[in-house]
Amino acid sequence: MASLRVPVNLGPRSYSIAISSGDADGLAAFARQAVPKSNRALVVVDAAIPQHADLVERNLQAAGWQTRRVTIPSGEASKSTAELSRLWDVLADWPADRKTLVVAVGGGVIGDLAGFAAATYARGLPLLMVPTTLLSMVDSSVGGKTGINHPSGKNLIGAFHQPAAVWIDTAFLDTLPEREFLSGLAEVIKYGVILDADFFAYLEAHADAIRRRDADAIRRIVARSCELKAVVVEQDEREETGLRAILNYGHTFAHVFETIGGYGAWLHGEAVAAGMVCASRLAEKQGLISAELTERQRRLLARFDLPIAPKSEWPIDPMIAGMYRDKKTELGRLRFILPTKLGHVELRDDVPETAAREILQTAS
Amino acid sequence: MASLRVPVNLGPRSYSIAISSGDADGLAAFARQAVPKSNRALVVVDAAIPQHADLVERNLQAAGWQTRRVTIPSGEASKSTAELSRLWDVLADWPADRKTLVVAVGGGVIGDLAGFAAATYARGLPLLMVPTTLLSMVDSSVGGKTGINHPSGKNLIGAFHQPAAVWIDTAFLDTLPEREFLSGLAEVIKYGVILDADFFAYLEAHADAIRRRDADAIRRIVARSCELKAVVVEQDEREETGLRAILNYGHTFAHVFETIGGYGAWLHGEAVAAGMVCASRLAEKQGLISAELTERQRRLLARFDLPIAPKSEWPIDPMIAGMYRDKKTELGRLRFILPTKLGHVELRDDVPETAAREILQTAS
Ligand SMILES: NC(=O)c1ccc[n+]([C@@H]2O[C@H](COP(=O)([O-])OP(=O)(O)OC[C@H]3O[C@@H](n4cnc5c(N)ncnc54)[C@H](O)[C@@H]3O)[C@@H](O)[C@H]2O)c1
Ligand SMILES: NC(=O)c1ccc[n+]([C@@H]2O[C@H](COP(=O)([O-])OP(=O)(O)OC[C@H]3O[C@@H](n4cnc5c(N)ncnc54)[C@H](O)[C@@H]3O)[C@@H](O)[C@H]2O)c1
Ligand SMILES: [Zn+2]
Ligand SMILES: [Zn+2]
Repeated sequence: MASLRVPVNLGPRSYSIAISSGDADGLAAFARQAVPKSNRALVVVDAAIPQHADLVERNLQAAGWQTRRVTIPSGEASKSTAELSRLWDVLADWPADRKTLVVAVGGGVIGDLAGFAAATYARGLPLLMVPTTLLSMVDSSVGGKTGINHPSGKNLIGAFHQPAAVWIDTAFLDTLPEREFLSGLAEVIKYGVILDADFFAYLEAHADAIRRRDADAIRRIVARSCELKAVVVEQDEREETGLRAILNYGHTFAHVFETIGGYGAWLHGEAVAAGMVCASRLAEKQGLISAELTERQRRLLARFDLPIAPKSEWPIDPMIAGMYRDKKTELGRLRFILPTKLGHVELRDDVPETAAREILQTAS
Repeated sequence: MASLRVPVNLGPRSYSIAISSGDADGLAAFARQAVPKSNRALVVVDAAIPQHADLVERNLQAAGWQTRRVTIPSGEASKSTAELSRLWDVLADWPADRKTLVVAVGGGVIGDLAGFAAATYARGLPLLMVPTTLLSMVDSSVGGKTGINHPSGKNLIGAFHQPAAVWIDTAFLDTLPEREFLSGLAEVIKYGVILDADFFAYLEAHADAIRRRDADAIRRIVARSCELKAVVVEQDEREETGLRAILNYGHTFAHVFETIGGYGAWLHGEAVAAGMVCASRLAEKQGLISAELTERQRRLLARFDLPIAPKSEWPIDPMIAGMYRDKKTELGRLRFILPTKLGHVELRDDVPETAAREILQTAS
């Protein structure tokens, strides 16, 4: 069974992503290579998946690590100062030192939280990401964004802290609910649209295998997604040049869908799916692409039962207002990432409000 | 009146330190150059020095900044999660964005706390250090270490976050109590011993002018101290190569003196003064230097009324035990930074416990 490696080249902060399926034993050797001198590991795990943490912990112990575990309640609410303090306390009580490895076993919530604890304890501990959701495998585990939420805003408190390594075992997905899995596919499709027409075509050609979670297909799409994200991150590690913004394709719409739908209406990836279709239709309207490109996205998303339009009952005005509050807007202009052809997007701030409004009206 | 500039060369994180005396007007132009697009500034200030914050705030406002101020109670206890959360809340309430400048007006406590808030809000805000104690001018404002305390340890929670600029106006020292001022001189002398024999000789030759806070002399020693710290930081930004450890000359002893003396017995610089004499005597004992070098340090420190030995009533055993707990020790060996000649030190882990014990016995 092929095990894949994706390098992330960030000079002294470079690291490697390993992608395998059912190779729990491989973890410890991989981690050992990334952090040769580490002998203690704090395993931070989502409460829903103790069995995956067992596997990780057993393997680290067999390789000579002394381990401790902290279990975090599932869900976004755990990206809090309370859970962060709990991690700091456990590290301080041990006490951890700069060689102590923090291991995040879970989805984006665990990765963001444990990653931020690693970023801020003793001015930085090595971090091993072990993502267990499709979204965290293809997105949140790569790139170094860590953080927690503040009552005033999501991910408002945080730091850039690149992991020492990322260990992806697609077998962890076996327990992932279908809806979470499909939602993660929206971000996978996004990579195809923004950066890689061939990859998009691969997804079209193998949609059935992907949907039934064929291990070879999953490894392949996870690896390619990581590769594409790595290329972007390598060129704009700290979101300074603006290049990293292309990862936000579909997200200006998605964020207002998530807000208006309220917690629990749509998963993030579902909102991104509908958001991409809206952005693509906006690009059509602006004369950037033909209707066919939107149609291909719509068809592919539909094969994974992902939404392709906002809900008809959502009122337009608050959504438009929300777009102006998006942190990417500046000086009262709407900003969108729009495709110009399959595999290429651009940041546009010349889209009139009327155009965005029309898209929302005819979509819903 | 000469205004000095010290560059800190850290690639994309490079910045400039300005050293002047009574040039409040210069601040805004200097800050504008460092952060051209910033239009909001959060001024974080020590409660003891509102007048200095007034000056800073007025000048920033005159240069077009919208400002808010947070006043922090004086003292080490403010390096806490409670004060950190308060800063996060004010930033989130505003709301701050990535162009919002955080301005730290105070000593090391304010710099460390405000710096850590800047490091962790929106994954990093620009930071302007405006140090108002001698220690913060020559040490804590330069180098990017930020953080807060944890019940289990000082500076345990933190991040590396280089400032965008450092504005040093020695006129702020006019209000600084004598003891705080003299304590800061211990770190200044340290730079001479570890890196620059000529600078040490300058301090000997100008001790009287320094003691009466002659502005030219103060600017000169502050600038040279910053330069020397910058050189070290440039070669070991994140304390990875071990080079940065030379800044800890005298500190293995100092830390146990601070602990055994308890809060408030000695200021940090006072402990460092006695610690340097002990380390120097240890170097003599190891045959690294002659007695004359220790004597020169002792004489210079005494001219500033700094302690040159631990208090005689302090018991030896707990101090030795404390040295083994020092975070620089590894595998049960004591580690010291020891001089080999004036202007040069080395990290030694071959010092027998008996030697350290003897120094403490004969010193006190
Ligand atoms: N840092 C980044 O660059 C980045 C990028 C995108 C998203 N994020 C963050 O990621 C978070 C969303 O990530 P997510 O979608 O993985 O959410 P999540 O971590 O909440 O996981 C989703 C759900 O799946 C469960 N789960 C996780 N792994 C499982 C498994 N193997 N089997 C069964 N159940 C499992 C969890 O308990 C949870 O209920 C958000 O907080 C978002 O802000 C961060
Ligand atoms: N980040 C680093 O690299 C670094 C390096 C060394 C020390 N530190 C930290 O710095 C702190 C010590 O710094 P410090 O010695 O500046 O202490 P401090 O900030 O507590 O200031 C000392 C005292 O002086 C008062 N004060 C400050 N400026 C004044 C002024 N101009 N006039 C009158 N009073 C004034 C304060 O209210 C306080 O009581 C410690 O927390 C230490 O951990 C950090
Ligand atoms: Zn997303
Ligand atoms: Zn010191």
